[in-house]
Amino acid sequence: MRICDLAESLGCPFEGDGEYRVRQVASLEDGSPEALGFVRSEKHLPELSNSKVGAVIAPAGVDVGGRPVIRSPNPGLHFARAVALLHPRSRPEPGVHPSAEVDASAEIDSKASVGPHCSVGARCRVGAGSVLHPQVTLYPDVSVGADCTLHARVVVREGTRIGDRVVLQAGVVLGTDGFGYVFDEGGGWEHIPHTGGVIIEDDVEVGANSTIDRSMLRDTRIGRGTKIDTLVMIGHNCEVGEHAILAAQVGMAGSSTVERRVIMMGQSALAGHLTVGEGAFVGGRAAVSSDVPPHTRVWGTPHLEERRWFRSIAVFKKLPELVKRLRAIEKHLGLGKH
Amino acid sequence: MRICDLAESLGCPFEGDGEYRVRQVASLEDGSPEALGFVRSEKHLPELSNSKVGAVIAPAGVDVGGRPVIRSPNPGLHFARAVALLHPRSRPEPGVHPSAEVDASAEIDSKASVGPHCSVGARCRVGAGSVLHPQVTLYPDVSVGADCTLHARVVVREGTRIGDRVVLQAGVVLGTDGFGYVFDEGGGWEHIPHTGGVIIEDDVEVGANSTIDRSMLRDTRIGRGTKIDTLVMIGHNCEVGEHAILAAQVGMAGSSTVERRVIMMGQSALAGHLTVGEGAFVGGRAAVSSDVPPHTRVWGTPHLEERRWFRSIAVFKKLPELVKRLRAIEKHLGLGKH
Amino acid sequence: MRICDLAESLGCPFEGDGEYRVRQVASLEDGSPEALGFVRSEKHLPELSNSKVGAVIAPAGVDVGGRPVIRSPNPGLHFARAVALLHPRSRPEPGVHPSAEVDASAEIDSKASVGPHCSVGARCRVGAGSVLHPQVTLYPDVSVGADCTLHARVVVREGTRIGDRVVLQAGVVLGTDGFGYVFDEGGGWEHIPHTGGVIIEDDVEVGANSTIDRSMLRDTRIGRGTKIDTLVMIGHNCEVGEHAILAAQVGMAGSSTVERRVIMMGQSALAGHLTVGEGAFVGGRAAVSSDVPPHTRVWGTPHLEERRWFRSIAVFKKLPELVKRLRAIEKHLGLGKH
Repeated sequence: MRICDLAESLGCPFEGDGEYRVRQVASLEDGSPEALGFVRSEKHLPELSNSKVGAVIAPAGVDVGGRPVIRSPNPGLHFARAVALLHPRSRPEPGVHPSAEVDASAEIDSKASVGPHCSVGARCRVGAGSVLHPQVTLYPDVSVGADCTLHARVVVREGTRIGDRVVLQAGVVLGTDGFGYVFDEGGGWEHIPHTGGVIIEDDVEVGANSTIDRSMLRDTRIGRGTKIDTLVMIGHNCEVGEHAILAAQVGMAGSSTVERRVIMMGQSALAGHLTVGEGAFVGGRAAVSSDVPPHTRVWGTPHLEERRWFRSIAVFKKLPELVKRLRAIEKHLGLGKH
Repeated sequence: MRICDLAESLGCPFEGDGEYRVRQVASLEDGSPEALGFVRSEKHLPELSNSKVGAVIAPAGVDVGGRPVIRSPNPGLHFARAVALLHPRSRPEPGVHPSAEVDASAEIDSKASVGPHCSVGARCRVGAGSVLHPQVTLYPDVSVGADCTLHARVVVREGTRIGDRVVLQAGVVLGTDGFGYVFDEGGGWEHIPHTGGVIIEDDVEVGANSTIDRSMLRDTRIGRGTKIDTLVMIGHNCEVGEHAILAAQVGMAGSSTVERRVIMMGQSALAGHLTVGEGAFVGGRAAVSSDVPPHTRVWGTPHLEERRWFRSIAVFKKLPELVKRLRAIEKHLGLGKH
Repeated sequence: MRICDLAESLGCPFEGDGEYRVRQVASLEDGSPEALGFVRSEKHLPELSNSKVGAVIAPAGVDVGGRPVIRSPNPGLHFARAVALLHPRSRPEPGVHPSAEVDASAEIDSKASVGPHCSVGARCRVGAGSVLHPQVTLYPDVSVGADCTLHARVVVREGTRIGDRVVLQAGVVLGTDGFGYVFDEGGGWEHIPHTGGVIIEDDVEVGANSTIDRSMLRDTRIGRGTKIDTLVMIGHNCEVGEHAILAAQVGMAGSSTVERRVIMMGQSALAGHLTVGEGAFVGGRAAVSSDVPPHTRVWGTPHLEERRWFRSIAVFKKLPELVKRLRAIEKHLGLGKH
């Protein structure tokens, strides 16, 4: 693709030789003369000057050493879009594969694609442009909006409602029965039927083998634009706001709320029945055990406000020295036993 | 359903208008005049007085404001059963779907259901009333008892024995090869064949995408009535007793034992070759590194007895202040360097 | 099998009655007179003397009480191989099952086996002796080497390259889209297309329901002979060296490197963009937050060098006592408030 055409597609101005052909995308480190890279700011100019990339995306005014350049106020975003334009993902043809089992009462849009060995239950609806890769199972009464991608062997349980442009990576399970039990007369655990559902709003993405439980009575809800990584567990009755980030192996116990734009880093967890306020940040491996106010940063098990945790951890690393100092004082004073 | 009929089905007495029609179940918070709610005790009466629910399940003697009421010594249990009666789960018809591949030597009870694209290996047995949802794979020599539910794309490896009324949520893997290796002559890792099996006793439930490894020589065993949540990992040669609870993302390393009625909260873990005694409680995120006596409560990484851990954590949070006090003493005594 | 034949197959000398028939393998604890056990060294002779096993594998010179014995410098390794010889795993016949969907452009070796309901995309290659169990999905352009085992419902995304003798347990997902986003103009998260791939070298094994992300630009790579347990998450752009061990529920954030022969124990994790050096050991539940030098042992969240961590933890357990000693000093000196 000519760089002038790429720039036009991105809606960005360019400078230099518009006939330059972009054949690859690359990091500055790995680049070749046929590759397009990007620099976020002048800070990265030393890497650029050592790079073999033939062209770049860079903010206005940044000197790129005479290379053809696409100018952007957000080079990372436009680089991502350039990658998408240069490497369009092949998608299956519309239509239902003959090996798929689709209930007669299901409505599959003529522009949707249902792959080999899929199972689509009664009264399901799949919108235009959506793709079900092989072996996806939709239980009855599932609705999937437009332009969604359900990768291989996703399972969506009965009644789940999925918005538009949702991406479910391979092995995702939506709407599995929540983990709620009561004691029966004999002291055994009896399951509480979960009649609530799961609602996945527009532009949500869920990573491979992650699971989202259905609710007991209301709905478990994942807000618009939220991105969830792999092997994440979201319990029954949880609410996740818009544009949140849940990184890999995060766990949310039941009935908890994560408000909009919260970021939970890898392996962090929430106890049940609490709220993490808007824009809060939960550090990697943190275990949140009570409400977190909006725009707060927390770490640790159980969680502490970020600065407090780092200060306590700094002392923790030196605890043996602390004990020595204590002993020295006791010895000085003739206290304790030495 | 008339509330008098519901009460009779539950085996409970009722008071008030027996002709009242229960159309929904709801929490007190979300209820409508057509919905049935429940109160565990008089403590919840303030919520009930503000609730719109038209009827309730409540202990004898609790004043429910004139609503039709089903009396129960265990309102949570009878509410769960009321939900099941009011929202019976639709189940597939008995029979083997034509797209399923069932080995000729397998015995499928005529009252069992084998869904689309299932694979059932040689010599498998599936009991009466059991349901295999789409894409379940049974390797050879698997036995599944009566009235089990195997959700979509469960995989059960060769020789696994499953009791009655077992529920396996979507994506569960039973009997995967245990993680055991020895060094070969060249210093590489060579897998030790795992010839043991997995035994799942009656009334066990396993959550979505959880995995249970097969054993090296004996059997990995999950005791009757135990409930396991999603994304749990149980290693080779483990034993889990009856009526235990393993919450989400728990990990059990190999050759460990969890005795009956143990509760392990979310993301907690067991090192290998140890025992958690009957009725013990392992707190969320705890990492158990040695035997836990029966009826003990533990938290932390590595675990401590509950009160010790909470006391240590309370000090941990104030470590920076502790250092200041130490410094003040040293200064007072002219010790150390300031 | 006669023990003399078994010894010959193992390439080991034997002593005693060569006509002895080995019918089972067993631990010393569970053994019967028809079973073969093993002892690593003289240390285990007390267990052997109490054992009912009829024959053993033992190092030269170890007195096995007159039992027929196979002599080996590495009894564990030869026991593992004896198990494999005595319990050969049945494997499906070569050929493509009629219910599998294989693209016309895919090349399946005539000695490979493709099971029921598998989906094999365009231009895929599957080598001789490899087995795809039921419901495996290969997206387009996947190559699978020789003698691989892909268990039921493994998903391999487009372009992934898999070496020889690789074992993927049930539910593994290779090549899922990496978790990388940039802000769009409206403040939402926009996915960065991941055009890199995943390379799995020879003799790698991956546990059930584990996931390995594809890279943004380069390749995510798992080195030869590395063994990965269940529910492990490996992020985009990661590199894992040869003969490493990643135990269950480990998480590797993006762009991290684990060098050869590293061992990461259960539930441990790596933050992004760091390196764990050759031969290092990461303890259970450790969270590595910066580079780990080669041949170092680390524990804790965040990680510390092993001895430092154990010493700090030892003090942590006694923090309440530490506070008492501090208070006693303050009281002695008339400092602080009591």
